[in-house]
Amino acid sequence: MEVRKLYLVAGKAEGGTPLNAFDNALLDAGIGDVNLVKVSSIIPPGAEVVVGKPNLPKGALVPCVYAERTSDKPGERIAVALAVGIAEDGFGVVMESEGETAEEAAAKAVEMVKEAFSVRGLTLKRILQIASEHQVIRCGGVVAACVYWR
Amino acid sequence: MEVRKLYLVAGKAEGGTPLNAFDNALLDAGIGDVNLVKVSSIIPPGAEVVVGKPNLPKGALVPCVYAERTSDKPGERIAVALAVGIAEDGFGVVMESEGETAEEAAAKAVEMVKEAFSVRGLTLKRILQIASEHQVIRCGGVVAACVYWR
Amino acid sequence: MEVRKLYLVAGKAEGGTPLNAFDNALLDAGIGDVNLVKVSSIIPPGAEVVVGKPNLPKGALVPCVYAERTSDKPGERIAVALAVGIAEDGFGVVMESEGETAEEAAAKAVEMVKEAFSVRGLTLKRILQIASEHQVIRCGGVVAACVYWR
Repeated sequence: MEVRKLYLVAGKAEGGTPLNAFDNALLDAGIGDVNLVKVSSIIPPGAEVVVGKPNLPKGALVPCVYAERTSDKPGERIAVALAVGIAEDGFGVVMESEGETAEEAAAKAVEMVKEAFSVRGLTLKRILQIASEHQVIRCGGVVAACVYWR
Repeated sequence: MEVRKLYLVAGKAEGGTPLNAFDNALLDAGIGDVNLVKVSSIIPPGAEVVVGKPNLPKGALVPCVYAERTSDKPGERIAVALAVGIAEDGFGVVMESEGETAEEAAAKAVEMVKEAFSVRGLTLKRILQIASEHQVIRCGGVVAACVYWR
Repeated sequence: MEVRKLYLVAGKAEGGTPLNAFDNALLDAGIGDVNLVKVSSIIPPGAEVVVGKPNLPKGALVPCVYAERTSDKPGERIAVALAVGIAEDGFGVVMESEGETAEEAAAKAVEMVKEAFSVRGLTLKRILQIASEHQVIRCGGVVAACVYWR
């Protein structure tokens, strides 16, 4: 499969169980009706990265970098984030992180992307980020994802 | 890859190490000689779901939802289950769970499937389930899987 | 995708965070610029297994068995290993393990491969192994991987 476009999405939700909260957060993010295949975490040169929901056929096998967190502790603050660093030629690195707030999680992910570029000797052309935070009511989940599609 | 048929299988086994117990449980389930690629957990509309062992070429890359549990505590009861909810058009959701008995694990998975259908506004046409339980002798493993194949 | 050749690689590195240490260890192993898709752990008959770095296009989706470990405890010794058992017809089983030294981790993986062959009623024609060990300075990671490629 040739990946041509990558979509950054985020979601959050409550659910009856941690797995349902995760499922509901995926639905909220617009990627709940596909089969996510977890991958680590490189953007192919020439691919385009956008913030927004992809239009995926139901049940498709979809490569995806994602960070997720669930909690059944009422009141707990949960957050996850992805940062995507892009080089001049479109090559990119995705880093995932978590924290108590979206801001905190995103800041950590951005730092990680900077290191990933530094060790590769690459110059950052731009950084995209996506994050989700939620204060748990009974059982909640957050997800931030980078979906590989065409 | 176009997925046309999904197979529900379960297995259990003892092994010399937790990883061997898992490997042996996969062999018991009939899926020990392939490369499982873990996916989350949607049945494409139009695909057929059956309970039974698929005929897979050795070493094939096989998308699969699975729940697994291993334990090296003699006497411990371990169980895992999958439930698959199917809608009128064949679209389905797979949920995985664990517990001490197959019955307990399956009941949890069925509840999760019901919620997954409810939040999607879908009507359940049927539910399939598969579970495995085992009382550990020295080091044991259980697996329940939904294998995506053609 | 038809897998024709498998590459055993290992790496180790320090990093600013555990995820960066893992990323840096992947770079050290020569597989840091692709999307790894984790698979379990069978070598298809007829495929060739070599020790050495593959030449992978940046951003490719690459099936891979890997063991990884990170630690941010200065002074801690971390190691991971893979052992690959090969039968007469080229069918093989990969087992992953960890430990404090490469030698310890590799010995465990070899034992697991022997059991995997024994339960399958197969004769081991040869065993390959790859391991990585590292003593953590501030935050370190090790990885051992079997990369599926053509």
